[in-house]
Amino acid sequence: MTRLLDPLLRDVNELILRMGGACEAILAKALRAVQQRDAELACQVAQDDLEIDRLDIEVDEAVLRAIALQAPVAGDLRRILAVKSIAVDLERVGDLARNIAKSAERLAAREPVPLPSRLESLAEEVQSMLRESLDAFVARDAERAGALLRRDDEVDLDEDRLIEAALGEIAAHPAISAQEVDLILIAKNLERVADHATNIAEDVILVVEGRNVKHAEKLARTAG
Amino acid sequence: MTRLLDPLLRDVNELILRMGGACEAILAKALRAVQQRDAELACQVAQDDLEIDRLDIEVDEAVLRAIALQAPVAGDLRRILAVKSIAVDLERVGDLARNIAKSAERLAAREPVPLPSRLESLAEEVQSMLRESLDAFVARDAERAGALLRRDDEVDLDEDRLIEAALGEIAAHPAISAQEVDLILIAKNLERVADHATNIAEDVILVVEGRNVKHAEKLARTAG
Repeated sequence: MTRLLDPLLRDVNELILRMGGACEAILAKALRAVQQRDAELACQVAQDDLEIDRLDIEVDEAVLRAIALQAPVAGDLRRILAVKSIAVDLERVGDLARNIAKSAERLAAREPVPLPSRLESLAEEVQSMLRESLDAFVARDAERAGALLRRDDEVDLDEDRLIEAALGEIAAHPAISAQEVDLILIAKNLERVADHATNIAEDVILVVEGRNVKHAEKLARTAG
Repeated sequence: MTRLLDPLLRDVNELILRMGGACEAILAKALRAVQQRDAELACQVAQDDLEIDRLDIEVDEAVLRAIALQAPVAGDLRRILAVKSIAVDLERVGDLARNIAKSAERLAAREPVPLPSRLESLAEEVQSMLRESLDAFVARDAERAGALLRRDDEVDLDEDRLIEAALGEIAAHPAISAQEVDLILIAKNLERVADHATNIAEDVILVVEGRNVKHAEKLARTAG
């Protein structure tokens, strides 16, 4: 099934892996800037994100080149477009890391507040989901990708709990409300990184099995 | 330039217009739910969003069909992929409207707070940008699309001011902090709708002129 696909996608795949690595690094840096209250580190994130934007443009070109050179048939074409769609998700992860870095900058400029342990564990879980989605892509492992889809609901719950806790902190200590709002925004941004990891997992399933599971759960939930 | 493209894209274009109309409607409904504190209206938004998800899947299929039937060359292919990318943006606008509706539900359940007039004008500007991006797509008007790119910076500034004001409100009236946090989240979501309208405008320029302006400003700003 991947015989035809392999030469076609080599360039694109390599670019995706570079993008994925850059996204993991930028996200880790943004979160480190939050933890260490390091405004300088936070500033680097916007710069690093430009490299991801450049890779995104390169993916666009490589996809066009692959299609033009190989004139792939429907199944392969579907797979190439799925790979392109992974690049779209990774580009957004870069943007989200930039948002987190902006919160880090603001947090570093204000009175320090303790970071909730739940935020730390949410950050770890989301980084692990992103890594796992990229590993599933490298391994072309639809089963691993499928396992990821089930982790997103837990992240949503964790985000809700974090927001509730932050609202409680604001009510009790209005003086630190600006910081708590940034913690809420960081949680929101992390939750969206998990959404993109989920999208990538869906695209991996499409690449490997040719099965489109996009929106499947949401649509099934209402049909049932 | 559009001769070859026209038959190729008729189905896809029609689907995009249906998606665009659905996105404008769902966003208006979510904002009305905020204004009128109408939890029931807010609940409908998640349901309406499913229709957008369905259209998104149809676009994927129509794009594959168009490419398979016509085996387009590089320029046309680039245009088709740009149209597909518009669908990705519209699908996200649906998600953002759903986020706004969630805030509307929470706001309806709490002590009423006055909506800042700046939020109303931000909502109007963002809705106007979305409409204009879709009109530029229908008219295949790269100039109109280009004019849109310049409006995004103003939206970012408005969002910043709204957040500052909300933080001020929280400091002065901690009892309404939960509501103010939801106003901040609504402003964030509106700002992201404007980002997607900007992306659509960039894709319109790509469709009409074959010019890729994606990330161009951000990359140029750093190069300069």
